Amino acid sequence: MKSATIIGAGLAGSLWAVYLAKAGYKVTIFERRSDIRKAEISAGKSINLALSTRGWTAMKEVGVDKEIKPIAIPMSGRIMHSTSGELTYQPYGKEGQAIYSVSRGGINAKMMDIAEASGDVEIHYQHRCLDVYFESGTVLIENALTKETFKHQSDVVFACDGAYSAVRYNGFQKLDRFNFSQNFIADGYREILLPANEDGSYKLDKNALHIWPRGRFMMIALANEDGSFTCTLFMPFENNEYSFDKLTSKEAVDNFFKNVFPDFHEMMPNVAHQWEDHPLSSLAIMRCYPWTHGKVALMGDAAHATVPFYGQGMNASLEDCYEMGRLMKKHNENWDEVFKEYQEIRKPNGDALQDLSLYNYKVMADFVADPHFLLKKKMELRISELYPDKYLSLYSMVSFSNIPYAEAHKKGLEQDAFMENIMAENDVKALIDNGGIDDLIHSIFGN
Amino acid sequence: MKSATIIGAGLAGSLWAVYLAKAGYKVTIFERRSDIRKAEISAGKSINLALSTRGWTAMKEVGVDKEIKPIAIPMSGRIMHSTSGELTYQPYGKEGQAIYSVSRGGINAKMMDIAEASGDVEIHYQHRCLDVYFESGTVLIENALTKETFKHQSDVVFACDGAYSAVRYNGFQKLDRFNFSQNFIADGYREILLPANEDGSYKLDKNALHIWPRGRFMMIALANEDGSFTCTLFMPFENNEYSFDKLTSKEAVDNFFKNVFPDFHEMMPNVAHQWEDHPLSSLAIMRCYPWTHGKVALMGDAAHATVPFYGQGMNASLEDCYEMGRLMKKHNENWDEVFKEYQEIRKPNGDALQDLSLYNYKVMADFVADPHFLLKKKMELRISELYPDKYLSLYSMVSFSNIPYAEAHKKGLEQDAFMENIMAENDVKALIDNGGIDDLIHSIFGN
Repeated sequence: MKSATIIGAGLAGSLWAVYLAKAGYKVTIFERRSDIRKAEISAGKSINLALSTRGWTAMKEVGVDKEIKPIAIPMSGRIMHSTSGELTYQPYGKEGQAIYSVSRGGINAKMMDIAEASGDVEIHYQHRCLDVYFESGTVLIENALTKETFKHQSDVVFACDGAYSAVRYNGFQKLDRFNFSQNFIADGYREILLPANEDGSYKLDKNALHIWPRGRFMMIALANEDGSFTCTLFMPFENNEYSFDKLTSKEAVDNFFKNVFPDFHEMMPNVAHQWEDHPLSSLAIMRCYPWTHGKVALMGDAAHATVPFYGQGMNASLEDCYEMGRLMKKHNENWDEVFKEYQEIRKPNGDALQDLSLYNYKVMADFVADPHFLLKKKMELRISELYPDKYLSLYSMVSFSNIPYAEAHKKGLEQDAFMENIMAENDVKALIDNGGIDDLIHSIFGN
Repeated sequence: MKSATIIGAGLAGSLWAVYLAKAGYKVTIFERRSDIRKAEISAGKSINLALSTRGWTAMKEVGVDKEIKPIAIPMSGRIMHSTSGELTYQPYGKEGQAIYSVSRGGINAKMMDIAEASGDVEIHYQHRCLDVYFESGTVLIENALTKETFKHQSDVVFACDGAYSAVRYNGFQKLDRFNFSQNFIADGYREILLPANEDGSYKLDKNALHIWPRGRFMMIALANEDGSFTCTLFMPFENNEYSFDKLTSKEAVDNFFKNVFPDFHEMMPNVAHQWEDHPLSSLAIMRCYPWTHGKVALMGDAAHATVPFYGQGMNASLEDCYEMGRLMKKHNENWDEVFKEYQEIRKPNGDALQDLSLYNYKVMADFVADPHFLLKKKMELRISELYPDKYLSLYSMVSFSNIPYAEAHKKGLEQDAFMENIMAENDVKALIDNGGIDDLIHSIFGN
């Protein structure tokens, strides 16, 4: 029987197990942590994530989407919270388009259930990968409970073991000519749980992603199923007017929220008391190449860990599964050929995803509070309504399409220059106010 | 008694041991390899190196220079070998200035002797560092012969264990927010030993660094003490008209040398038979930060491994010792303060060294065969002869001064733009030929 090993039972690992099981592989998964379905999610991991089109596409391919839809909360736009408490809404796309807030633990548990139910899949928890033998497809595994080590061999091995991938660290990094970088950005994050009202209702509109943009830093909030919101404060660690190193006392935290996020402080006056509930965590971009060697491939964060500002980390990982699945069929399970094309196709997209993610911190923390940016988004939206075949905004290409990230990035830069030109030559604000905007758009895109 | 641990008995480790011993430290060195004084130098390590002013300065500070001088061969300039066998000489600096060809093994052995003789220094060979405990200054060591492991504690720990530093890999890389990258360039290298004549004499001028510049690749040769030359061919691994992947048979190697380096082939017609004597090796730039944590500091290649094209890898490592020694005195052996200033000062210089090293591949492989470049060097030399206080070429700043690399790099770029301007506005070639060049220089630099 055809066999595969997967290191890591996270989002990429559990979805890829479903793909492999459906293709008739006996799949063995080794996961360092305990069963997420029986234990608390580990501290420091973000609690909810934004699922968008690429993720749905990858899940739909193997019928997983139906099981996830009921636990996903649609967010059709952003709501910006100014310091004075004023709210501004900006739709993400057209009517009916949305990204979805999902619980990392919830979606992961569901995918494990599906993987186990869909074929010959075995998941071993609390099993660490110590080493990898590329040519034979063998991994050296330690049972963390018994400390016993053993080797496990299969036709092919997939490292879905995250940003701090053991396979990459213990295996790939020791290969000659393996390029690798881990770059931590100057900012960290801390999560805060905004509880539901006493009656279980939401304190904010649950169908939007909330942003408190403050220029060099920001807070965001995504709804959870139970009426609460997971809020995340992104901010420099140090060396800034506002940075984490200054928030070392309850009083300092309280004052910070009172002054910087007054509407939030009103909703959650005890925020300073929950400050230590979640750790202060760092954020890194990890790049490497090659992604495959011998019988082993890196997938998801193990290959292209990114910062979370485009909400695309999970989506890119699930898209890896979709693409690997497509190539598995295309090359008739000749894994040498699959791996070759996989890394050639996916690497530029991983790089673009990371560049886009870094760029979007500026968009979220700063640009969304800028009238010029919001005007441009309004105009963009109208263009794509009138000429959907001719114009798709960068955000839409990334979040509502399956256009490769590298292509989206390139096109997005070109379009932005084009839009800036139009706005320099026309009073777009007046045209929107007086209804003349459609005429302008027709005059430009009509032919 | 004050104590220090050094991981690695290479060039940085053995010189730094001398500094520490002279400052009254009990020094324990753990070296992964066998004693270089009793064994063959490991394959793949380059056999000779170019020592320049920074290295001499660092050795002189602790009196080591006197012992090294007798085994160093001065090279006062480059000799370029064209395909047609024509030789062009270009002096490196002023009369009397030279860089020095030294044997890696020879200089390393001498420095170990001096370290052992200069105080309480113990070197343990075939001892690997498995782990490091930053706060206590403890290392976990494995005796490679007995497989026994033990811990060793001291006031302070120095990782001088090279590009593939175990301390960096097993320790620093696991720290949160440690930035790291390993980037392999597209080129590799292979060494060839050009033997002495039958009578022991040199086949080429020993007091020059020989270059066969071929545009996208090159070969170089440095003299050894025994009449031989170590020649190194730098070339892309693949995907080029000339690349290592095409030289897979004796016949292909022979043809390659016949066509590309005909004068060399004449001197060494059996080159193809020696092709496999040395391995094909890769070349990488490794960057990281921070360089210190707790009681542990990275020095030399462990902190800033570079490609060899400026001949500065060893010199930068020895300069680390000089700077660490200076700061040790300045801060009265308060190591927290020493480490803080050490990494702040040295990191920009490490980065600049790496940028300069990459740039100089182009200089050596390509520019040195370009009449415009050689003319510029001639003009530069004359300027620095007439106005030594006002002008020092980039090469001289890097190789014949102790000006920090970052400053040299910045100044070098400015000077180059300035020189290009002068050459665009004046017929420098004619002025050199007709003796008018000094007037031009005086008119520019006179005030």
